[in-house]
Amino acid sequence: MEYRFSDKLAALKPSAIREIFKSLTDPEIIAFAAGNPAPESFPVEEMAEISARIYKEMPVTALQYGTTEGYTPLRKAIAERQKKKFGIGIFPEDGRSFSDTTVIVSGGNQGLELACKAFCNEGDVVVCEDPSFIGALNSFRSNGAVTLGVPLREDGIDTEALENLLKTERRAKLLYVIPTFQNPSGITTSLEKRKEIYRIALKYGVMILEDNPYGELRFAGTEVPTIKSMDTEGIVIYCSSFSKILSSGMRVGYLTAPEEAMQKIVVAKQVEDVHTNMFFQILCFRYMTEKNFDGHIADVRGIYRKKCAHMLACLDEYLPAELKYTRPEGGLFVWCTLPDKIKMDEYVKRCLARRLALVPGSAFTPVQGAPCNSVRMSYSTENDERIERGCRIMGEVAREMLDE
Amino acid sequence: MEYRFSDKLAALKPSAIREIFKSLTDPEIIAFAAGNPAPESFPVEEMAEISARIYKEMPVTALQYGTTEGYTPLRKAIAERQKKKFGIGIFPEDGRSFSDTTVIVSGGNQGLELACKAFCNEGDVVVCEDPSFIGALNSFRSNGAVTLGVPLREDGIDTEALENLLKTERRAKLLYVIPTFQNPSGITTSLEKRKEIYRIALKYGVMILEDNPYGELRFAGTEVPTIKSMDTEGIVIYCSSFSKILSSGMRVGYLTAPEEAMQKIVVAKQVEDVHTNMFFQILCFRYMTEKNFDGHIADVRGIYRKKCAHMLACLDEYLPAELKYTRPEGGLFVWCTLPDKIKMDEYVKRCLARRLALVPGSAFTPVQGAPCNSVRMSYSTENDERIERGCRIMGEVAREMLDE
Repeated sequence: MEYRFSDKLAALKPSAIREIFKSLTDPEIIAFAAGNPAPESFPVEEMAEISARIYKEMPVTALQYGTTEGYTPLRKAIAERQKKKFGIGIFPEDGRSFSDTTVIVSGGNQGLELACKAFCNEGDVVVCEDPSFIGALNSFRSNGAVTLGVPLREDGIDTEALENLLKTERRAKLLYVIPTFQNPSGITTSLEKRKEIYRIALKYGVMILEDNPYGELRFAGTEVPTIKSMDTEGIVIYCSSFSKILSSGMRVGYLTAPEEAMQKIVVAKQVEDVHTNMFFQILCFRYMTEKNFDGHIADVRGIYRKKCAHMLACLDEYLPAELKYTRPEGGLFVWCTLPDKIKMDEYVKRCLARRLALVPGSAFTPVQGAPCNSVRMSYSTENDERIERGCRIMGEVAREMLDE
Repeated sequence: MEYRFSDKLAALKPSAIREIFKSLTDPEIIAFAAGNPAPESFPVEEMAEISARIYKEMPVTALQYGTTEGYTPLRKAIAERQKKKFGIGIFPEDGRSFSDTTVIVSGGNQGLELACKAFCNEGDVVVCEDPSFIGALNSFRSNGAVTLGVPLREDGIDTEALENLLKTERRAKLLYVIPTFQNPSGITTSLEKRKEIYRIALKYGVMILEDNPYGELRFAGTEVPTIKSMDTEGIVIYCSSFSKILSSGMRVGYLTAPEEAMQKIVVAKQVEDVHTNMFFQILCFRYMTEKNFDGHIADVRGIYRKKCAHMLACLDEYLPAELKYTRPEGGLFVWCTLPDKIKMDEYVKRCLARRLALVPGSAFTPVQGAPCNSVRMSYSTENDERIERGCRIMGEVAREMLDE
């Protein structure tokens, strides 16, 4: 049988990260490549305790079909918390021209994919930061959308280049940004640039898809308001998730968007998986309302504060000055840019030969095959000793290549 | 803001069943419309016991990211059980020209959607039984595929009409069938017709998508081999799920398909939800291997045997002879066809006014707006007294309309 596959998946390679992730089952390899949260961040005992009560108190609700929009108490709890903590969401009682609604999705990645499905025809353009999150890029591509990149600077996307692109790009439908502790760069977009991004998107009639999976994980610097909190016109779809604060394996995320846009997104979700796992939706709700949710998040932040500080100290010690890397104020990632003399692919290969896994930066370019001489590192899953060893390998390989 | 949505979702209405499902929160309404499994079929205590042990014994695996293909021990357990019980799956050691592989999906519906995404470009055709499962129809449409129907007879799809259609329909990529206890009709396709379906699909180079969510729920008659069990050439994608035998709310299903086709499907899944809830994948594995899985399924079968027999007895008693209905040997659904004099939409409306919810058959036509004078009833969630009351209402409204 010769299979005739659809065109939109033809160009789509399995995610480089996922493939590397599979190889990471080898415990000898130091996993700077993983994007997994720290396993010690999962509140196992509390989740077990809540689970036992769900089986006792509401087993049928937890095990039966639910509505596509998600478990209503969880949707409300998220909406209220976001409003209070981040100023996100226009409520009906705010008396604006639109109101926002929050729905549950099966992990943040599904939220991004659904937003694209709701808005993009084949050939439509999603404008992305360059570099950007590979999972999102592939989700956009799987809908036949074309991903274009705008360079990411130290304080966020190059807004001048963004405006120039939107002036001429008639097929742009979505602007995808991760303004806080960006994946893969660790960069946080400044307040000024966030305002400018909002202004430009509004001017050119492009929806903003704001992805904020790491927003709760600030361990240094000061909070910057989300773009969604500035959304007076209903042009921002906001996506976040419990993956980095409770559990990634349960696949529970959420979207907040104007009611009218959300209706389409809900239809798009219904035809994918009908609804998200009910049991864990209830578990998230109970965790938020019955446990010390903010206290737990503070603990998780503490874990990453330590790990990141340790990685940065090791990089400072071991890397030659020619290698430049970001100093994130939160999240999971450091982005290291190599000097021209060190070719990224070869660097990644030599590090892997010494049992250190990095993600090649080329995985994150919106335009496939575009040049990129950087690598992504995560400090989330390894212990101090292995983080130091990994940084030492990075330094040794770099020196070796600089000397050749 | 005037939103510019994608074309492929434009024509897609929220599923009639889902919308009715929302209205079913009113306990006064008798829910023949629901497709939910019987709540008493969930093995709550055993699931609670397994869950507690997962948190104790392997919390990190259960709460951390997993691979897109699914939890390996579960994939193996399903593959082995299918092989033993249903003769499904070509293994590498079988030494054939291809081998099958099994992956976990987030409910059967996702499996159907992914198969379509992997094979269909916009405008490609999915040939379906008429009537067919609305969730699948909408999933196909959401990928821009065109759904066409071939009449379903008492013993399965009209194979002559199928062959005539495929002779001329060059854009047909998939043939979607639910051969066992079909949704919505309750009809089981005969062995002869299954062979004929396989022959025709092979001849015209069309992949078969065999959906079998109810296959374990036979409570009368004798087992008929699946089409997948006849698949010597690698043209069948087989889809099933735990929704009707363990829990629907957990969203765990599976696909078995030739390795080469599955690679595309896995890429398609990766860009949707990365992977299926890990905790419940482990739970399914443990349930299958540590509990009396076959014994539990026998119990579930017993529940539906009783409920179905009761509904059929009530229909026999209360319905005028002009109404014809199927007598399923398994599954959840009865399909009732009205005489011309009774207009289906008005019938459904009048039943609802008397607090009985039925699904209008028009929801299930592959070609939207095609005529259909039938309704779908499920006996799965109501108790004996309410089943009888519902059937009495059906009879009363029918007589009233026949007499007008």
